[in-house]
Amino acid sequence: MHIGLVGLGRMGGNMRTRLRAAGVEVTGYDRDPNVSDVASVADLVAALPAPRTVWVMVPAGPITDAVVTELGGLLEAGDLIIDGGNTKFTDDLRRAESLALSGIDYIDVGVSGGVWGAQNGYGLMVGGPAEQVERVMPVFDALRPEGPREEGFVHVGPVGAGHYAKMVHNGIEYALMQAYAEGYELLEKRDDLITDVPGTFKAWQRGTVVRSWLLELLVRALEQDPELRDIEGYVEDSGEGRWTIEEAIENAVPVPTISASIFARFVSRQEDSPAMKAVAALRNQFGGHAVKKAGD
Amino acid sequence: MHIGLVGLGRMGGNMRTRLRAAGVEVTGYDRDPNVSDVASVADLVAALPAPRTVWVMVPAGPITDAVVTELGGLLEAGDLIIDGGNTKFTDDLRRAESLALSGIDYIDVGVSGGVWGAQNGYGLMVGGPAEQVERVMPVFDALRPEGPREEGFVHVGPVGAGHYAKMVHNGIEYALMQAYAEGYELLEKRDDLITDVPGTFKAWQRGTVVRSWLLELLVRALEQDPELRDIEGYVEDSGEGRWTIEEAIENAVPVPTISASIFARFVSRQEDSPAMKAVAALRNQFGGHAVKKAGD
Amino acid sequence: MHIGLVGLGRMGGNMRTRLRAAGVEVTGYDRDPNVSDVASVADLVAALPAPRTVWVMVPAGPITDAVVTELGGLLEAGDLIIDGGNTKFTDDLRRAESLALSGIDYIDVGVSGGVWGAQNGYGLMVGGPAEQVERVMPVFDALRPEGPREEGFVHVGPVGAGHYAKMVHNGIEYALMQAYAEGYELLEKRDDLITDVPGTFKAWQRGTVVRSWLLELLVRALEQDPELRDIEGYVEDSGEGRWTIEEAIENAVPVPTISASIFARFVSRQEDSPAMKAVAALRNQFGGHAVKKAGD
Amino acid sequence: MHIGLVGLGRMGGNMRTRLRAAGVEVTGYDRDPNVSDVASVADLVAALPAPRTVWVMVPAGPITDAVVTELGGLLEAGDLIIDGGNTKFTDDLRRAESLALSGIDYIDVGVSGGVWGAQNGYGLMVGGPAEQVERVMPVFDALRPEGPREEGFVHVGPVGAGHYAKMVHNGIEYALMQAYAEGYELLEKRDDLITDVPGTFKAWQRGTVVRSWLLELLVRALEQDPELRDIEGYVEDSGEGRWTIEEAIENAVPVPTISASIFARFVSRQEDSPAMKAVAALRNQFGGHAVKKAGD
Repeated sequence: MHIGLVGLGRMGGNMRTRLRAAGVEVTGYDRDPNVSDVASVADLVAALPAPRTVWVMVPAGPITDAVVTELGGLLEAGDLIIDGGNTKFTDDLRRAESLALSGIDYIDVGVSGGVWGAQNGYGLMVGGPAEQVERVMPVFDALRPEGPREEGFVHVGPVGAGHYAKMVHNGIEYALMQAYAEGYELLEKRDDLITDVPGTFKAWQRGTVVRSWLLELLVRALEQDPELRDIEGYVEDSGEGRWTIEEAIENAVPVPTISASIFARFVSRQEDSPAMKAVAALRNQFGGHAVKKAGD
Repeated sequence: MHIGLVGLGRMGGNMRTRLRAAGVEVTGYDRDPNVSDVASVADLVAALPAPRTVWVMVPAGPITDAVVTELGGLLEAGDLIIDGGNTKFTDDLRRAESLALSGIDYIDVGVSGGVWGAQNGYGLMVGGPAEQVERVMPVFDALRPEGPREEGFVHVGPVGAGHYAKMVHNGIEYALMQAYAEGYELLEKRDDLITDVPGTFKAWQRGTVVRSWLLELLVRALEQDPELRDIEGYVEDSGEGRWTIEEAIENAVPVPTISASIFARFVSRQEDSPAMKAVAALRNQFGGHAVKKAGD
Repeated sequence: MHIGLVGLGRMGGNMRTRLRAAGVEVTGYDRDPNVSDVASVADLVAALPAPRTVWVMVPAGPITDAVVTELGGLLEAGDLIIDGGNTKFTDDLRRAESLALSGIDYIDVGVSGGVWGAQNGYGLMVGGPAEQVERVMPVFDALRPEGPREEGFVHVGPVGAGHYAKMVHNGIEYALMQAYAEGYELLEKRDDLITDVPGTFKAWQRGTVVRSWLLELLVRALEQDPELRDIEGYVEDSGEGRWTIEEAIENAVPVPTISASIFARFVSRQEDSPAMKAVAALRNQFGGHAVKKAGD
Repeated sequence: MHIGLVGLGRMGGNMRTRLRAAGVEVTGYDRDPNVSDVASVADLVAALPAPRTVWVMVPAGPITDAVVTELGGLLEAGDLIIDGGNTKFTDDLRRAESLALSGIDYIDVGVSGGVWGAQNGYGLMVGGPAEQVERVMPVFDALRPEGPREEGFVHVGPVGAGHYAKMVHNGIEYALMQAYAEGYELLEKRDDLITDVPGTFKAWQRGTVVRSWLLELLVRALEQDPELRDIEGYVEDSGEGRWTIEEAIENAVPVPTISASIFARFVSRQEDSPAMKAVAALRNQFGGHAVKKAGD
């Protein structure tokens, strides 16, 4: 198996290494000539045997769009583009339709595992036509974790299904993180009673109902910084969490914990909250309650 | 009608004025001799005709408990204590039971209206025995707003019912305030589109579905400070909101908006959030996402 | 002033009546010949003096789009289309841009007041060019409630701003309704203590912090059906609530009470909840907790 | 090591087996003579060597209280009572204080693992005096999972700390379950796109960020019933979840996901929602929106 790989950043670079280690031949292209195997996307396409397979691993949105469009002009009928980025699933539908006009196939893959994927393998959720998924199975097998295939890989459905599943995965992830975080604050707050917060999380790793990989990461973080003194409670969010809410709204699915997790992140990034200024103003108006003046 | 009134602070003082204006005779006691009519609670009791009625208007909790206990030792069978403070309804049940041993009656009154009550009258929610409620109706009539009695006064049920209703009233109030505040932030955020935020709230005062007294107060606040520049988004909460959640939990009543309102206030008072530090730490662990270092 | 009005349903019909009563000349068109003044949109346009003003009051979405497109082909430079429906504000931007090519102006109006608007007047939030807003002010004055103009009418900003403000208004409305509803359940649940739930709401109408028009409507509903026996807890939601969440997500505005209100409506319409089936399944798996079998 | 064990139900019975297998001598007492080793609690105490250790594993609340009280009358200074049930941590403080008058020590243990603990070992969170914790370590070592002690056992702090940690553990657990459940509904709802919901969860078990033991249980449940047809979305909740919210409220800790999880369970058990009846009634009042009549 010989594939092209566009994008050799943290994720793409690690994936090239993992693929090669598994015996998959990879021609990689990156804007950075220091890591790139070829000088251009055109050169990459030229280097591949037909039917060609190009895995795109660049930032979701306009950059992925541009790469897919460029590839669409270079590939031919029977070839395949795989988008492994964090693309919105509706973009997949649009692209696949457009590429189909040239007979080019499209597969979307949700990839989970973060920086740990290089060593543990990546959880893969795949959407697209079954024959193509079957054809590039050696690539998926090289990237996914050791163990039974179906525990780290799934063909979820047609085009878009892979990124839809990844979107939901990330929505769940947000809520799981928030759940542990609320528990952390409840333990940390009662330092009169709980004398060993890191030890409590550590002890939850075996036998308990809440054991998980995220728990292990929290244990790791608390070992490095037992009171999280060096970390500010400021949290970004990426597109998938937001899309999850949008999809939930669209489909009338109640998602109270996922939305609460996103809102907590929004608040974490505000220096002052306009909403809470309004509440303080109201309290002051009806009750004569003192307000904190800005600058106090 | 001649009653005693213990506590002549902002609320009690205004109530004395309003009662007297309505022709109710009031003997008031306060720790502050500058506002007090008598030198002691004992003197106050001595000044009242039997059956005596003493309205207690001091901070809820231990202070109210102490006053009620003192009164319990001074009053006699057939007399009546009215607690108009923000007492937890379970405290009412306890006190009424104890006073009943001496034949003293007890009425709990939830009083709403804040500083505006002096001029508008106070919304009154009353719990206690019907005969006593009937006997002191002139007092309630003097305190409640103009208009039909049943639009500003209710005998909700037996002892405790008045403060239970007031507790729920305040829970609702929290969520109403938060609702307008979220709307405020949504308008304020899009200053590219919404060029007149105060004017928008002002225009909601007539004809719209969201018109209310709280809306009028928000309009007033925005007239004084159109961007709420002088107010910090820091909001205290009082007992009633918390008790509402506790009662909801106790009775398996889902209260998502009331609890969200309380949590928003909790967050507003945190300099940094332990929970969000934990989320940031987790993100950093699995994704290598940059964290904001404390002190950055 | 003489305007055209397309759509003479419950809202449009009432508005025609109110406009005429205020001395505004109205030519109305509706698909239903029984209520229509003219036979077609073209006839309506032909009947108007230049510069023409046509108020569109038909269901938001494709139907409004179709009417606006048809009008766009019939009107000429200097004329004005007003959309008074519950349109998504992004649709306004798109339409105004398209009509501007023909020199036709566009104003979007958020209209609040429901069936009560016929008698009380409608709260109006307007987006669009100032000169046109000024020109058709007699129309707005006829529709808005009695009293100072700025308490029932606002020119919120450029095209789109009117419907944006209405969207936020409805988001707030959802949360306000949910707040009272949670309070209702808390009162209703404790019928051992609260012997008069309708009376409690009734008594909140004067003097209290929670008094509002929605409260008055709840009092009215409880007078008609004190235990709400005849009403099922099944609640639809319209677009504005959903768009509010989407906008909040887009702009990183935390809206915990508005989203909770929407989710409560989603749940209210489910016969059984897939999510709660999953929770029940999990509980059963780890704890051996009994599950309710479907059909039990 | 030789201990007494009161309560030989599902949990206690399994624990006796596991303890004996590890070489800890156990004298067990249960009301059910078929499983009991002795005829009475007094006999159990008489059978133990001093200093005596009795592990209580009966339903939390009055039953545990009664057993602890009975043991308090039978044991002597230097003896130890361990409560392994789901006790509220404030009850631990009360009991320990009372037993201390007789010189009897008290340890509270939060035990996690459900029916799986018999085979996997139980996660243990312990509160109490260090010397006693040290003395009975062989018991904890026998019960906890294989592997490093600190990954399945923690001495969290003084009396009460063990059950506090377990309470927080369960609060987290509720929110984790709800998070997966929301994801399940999002996947299940889009059966046009997601053709393999069980397979998707199955594939998340390796490599992904959301892998956990609860995920494995959900996979197991979906293997047994891929569409959860046989399970109703009706979910009980136990004390710990509720206490978590109460503690959060008490300590001003925002817990939006944990509370959302509890509220979702409350709703799941309602045939009809009084709150949503109120919302439906309001909608009907202001908009003339149709309501679903009860019985429709």
